Amino acid sequence: MGFNSLKWSINKNRLISRIKELGQIGRDEDNRLTRLAVSDADKAGRDAIVDWMKEANLEVIIDRIGNVFGIWSNDDNKDKDPIMVGSHIDTVMNAGIYDGCYGVISGIEVIKTLKEEGFIPSRPIIIGIFTNEEGVRYQPDMMGSLVYAGGLSVDKALATVGIDGTLLGEELDRIGYLGEAEPGFIQPHAYVELHVEQGPILEKSNTTIGVVEGVQGISWQRITIEGIANHAGTTPIDMRQDAGIAAAKVMTFLRDRVKDLNDSTVVTVGCIEFKPNAINVVPSQATFTVDLRNPDEERLKEEEDILENYLEELAHVESVAISTEKLVRFEPVSFDENIAQLIENSANRRGLKSKRMISGAGHDAQMIARICPTAMIFVPSVGGISHNPKEYTPETDLVAGANVLLDVIIQLVELE
Amino acid sequence: MGFNSLKWSINKNRLISRIKELGQIGRDEDNRLTRLAVSDADKAGRDAIVDWMKEANLEVIIDRIGNVFGIWSNDDNKDKDPIMVGSHIDTVMNAGIYDGCYGVISGIEVIKTLKEEGFIPSRPIIIGIFTNEEGVRYQPDMMGSLVYAGGLSVDKALATVGIDGTLLGEELDRIGYLGEAEPGFIQPHAYVELHVEQGPILEKSNTTIGVVEGVQGISWQRITIEGIANHAGTTPIDMRQDAGIAAAKVMTFLRDRVKDLNDSTVVTVGCIEFKPNAINVVPSQATFTVDLRNPDEERLKEEEDILENYLEELAHVESVAISTEKLVRFEPVSFDENIAQLIENSANRRGLKSKRMISGAGHDAQMIARICPTAMIFVPSVGGISHNPKEYTPETDLVAGANVLLDVIIQLVELE
Repeated sequence: MGFNSLKWSINKNRLISRIKELGQIGRDEDNRLTRLAVSDADKAGRDAIVDWMKEANLEVIIDRIGNVFGIWSNDDNKDKDPIMVGSHIDTVMNAGIYDGCYGVISGIEVIKTLKEEGFIPSRPIIIGIFTNEEGVRYQPDMMGSLVYAGGLSVDKALATVGIDGTLLGEELDRIGYLGEAEPGFIQPHAYVELHVEQGPILEKSNTTIGVVEGVQGISWQRITIEGIANHAGTTPIDMRQDAGIAAAKVMTFLRDRVKDLNDSTVVTVGCIEFKPNAINVVPSQATFTVDLRNPDEERLKEEEDILENYLEELAHVESVAISTEKLVRFEPVSFDENIAQLIENSANRRGLKSKRMISGAGHDAQMIARICPTAMIFVPSVGGISHNPKEYTPETDLVAGANVLLDVIIQLVELE
Repeated sequence: MGFNSLKWSINKNRLISRIKELGQIGRDEDNRLTRLAVSDADKAGRDAIVDWMKEANLEVIIDRIGNVFGIWSNDDNKDKDPIMVGSHIDTVMNAGIYDGCYGVISGIEVIKTLKEEGFIPSRPIIIGIFTNEEGVRYQPDMMGSLVYAGGLSVDKALATVGIDGTLLGEELDRIGYLGEAEPGFIQPHAYVELHVEQGPILEKSNTTIGVVEGVQGISWQRITIEGIANHAGTTPIDMRQDAGIAAAKVMTFLRDRVKDLNDSTVVTVGCIEFKPNAINVVPSQATFTVDLRNPDEERLKEEEDILENYLEELAHVESVAISTEKLVRFEPVSFDENIAQLIENSANRRGLKSKRMISGAGHDAQMIARICPTAMIFVPSVGGISHNPKEYTPETDLVAGANVLLDVIIQLVELE
């Protein structure tokens, strides 16, 4: 491998037109993009990707959880552990066109470019599409990569019942993507995922390339506060057991704490419900969710403990009963420093400003990190907007990210 | 009128058994009591009351908004303005048996008692049932009394569309209670309403009789906060425009303020909704209601202004847009001091502890107060519970309240 190969560039027009083409698959009558996992729209999206894989002469293998792999190998390298590039093409409801798809299409684009340049890789290169990353139709999210990495049994995953009452296994079969390969059948040498940031940090700091060193730990819980319903007009304030006020106090407590900390801790209350939810009735019940994230496991645990202590105190002060239910708990994930340096070096060589960062969102890469050295490349999301039709990344940034992926793949393939 | 008449007592068994009998009308398969205004259940309840009116030889007249009046008059008094006793028998969903019904049945009981004692009134006595006090099926609440007092045109009220899409006028006709008398056709000399407190004050102060001097002013508004939806994991706290946190801050602000005031101001946030209401999305919109009450109009206005100023400041601090919509605004109502004194004196003579108070809830009496001297008598609600199957007032208190009503009616009829 000489320096020349690190000056190659992917084909901008092919990359952009394929992102747009995939973004047209799964539109409803209002032109909203919704390609929920293992739906007819997902099938149509998978079919398009498989066509592109075949057009690039990749061998397509589907595993039992529906992950699709496009494999570029030859007789000389087929016994070596491959370099894997992957992401997902399922979407949330009313989605943007970049989340996941950008990484998958860029992977194919990298292989196309390498082939056009006459590059002969020393290891196989594989593009993976992981089933159900979003977790909208079937829980949990990042399912295909979790199963692939051995974190969830394939039989249990296939038996998942969706929000529409369907069985994931039956739906995979129905759309023709219930494969026979055992998840984990290929042991990657390394894994790289290129993705839009879905947050505002790169754009705000005028940076093109995010060198992702890890993924935050995530703690999701549902908190239920039980008070007593009372007439809003006849019940003096000091005789109330107001579940709604107690919920509001938790929210402001968490916000004040995190603001004071001024570190990487983030906390969000995204869902709330009052019962009976009547204008003139003091709420008897308030249910809300807390999404707490921190890149450090000890710190995340500390914040969980602080919340738990606060709830105990609050229950006493407000004369309410408080119960909590853990919904999701992922420890923080650290990515591979060697791959991070390859990303950083590529950005430097190409004159792109880069920044070390932690992913706030969950990604398939955090699952695959369990089985091989892994890292991610981020490009900016304008306004930090994602999971939204307004999701947007400028074309120059899309190309820059794909070129960095190209460089990193070349080096991972060639370096020992 | 001698002192003897003020030693009479109503018939406890008849009063209690009728309250229980009416409380059985409108039960569903789960034995829950729901007698929404102008429903089949309401018709069945009205029929029972009309039977009791007729059994007491009262003349029954129905007006155009469906208010039912049972009139006891004779040739000697029929030209004098009558004393009116009234309340309602419609209920909320899954209601208790006392709210409204207690006052109506006690009125009939008072007339029965007076007749049995051979009392010949100098003025007619009228029992009124007002249509749709609860305002659950049709808005606004206290509708029949509001129309009767001239505060809402009967034609507009009849055209009200219910939560089930029905027209109030058509439903009144269907159940046989669309009368011909013009609302307001009888000008009362005075109006008295006996009611359960629906709050905890009497019970907590070990008091049997509430001498109700007025009704709090009520200010209902809906507040909508618009922020920006963002990913809960990828958006740093200081880059958020979190509509949910802003809503929580309004709630804790109002609560802290009213707690510090420690006066008769009450405030309640009973309804709340977040959009998109997803665990991992910063809320883009929060909508909630504020129910603010104060017995003094100037103070109520002051609290509304303080909230308005706070919202203005908050919009700036949290980078959100805040809009408010007035839903209901009733000025405080002052009742008649002479009638209040009659109530107080009766309680004293009967050895019942009494307490001057302001009604926290709205009642038909506050509408009728527009057209004649008016007051209310309260009896305790155990635990302050109302609009709930657990609504309960001990029988001795029910009897005590009806006896005070008896005394007050006798004096209002006889005094000039």
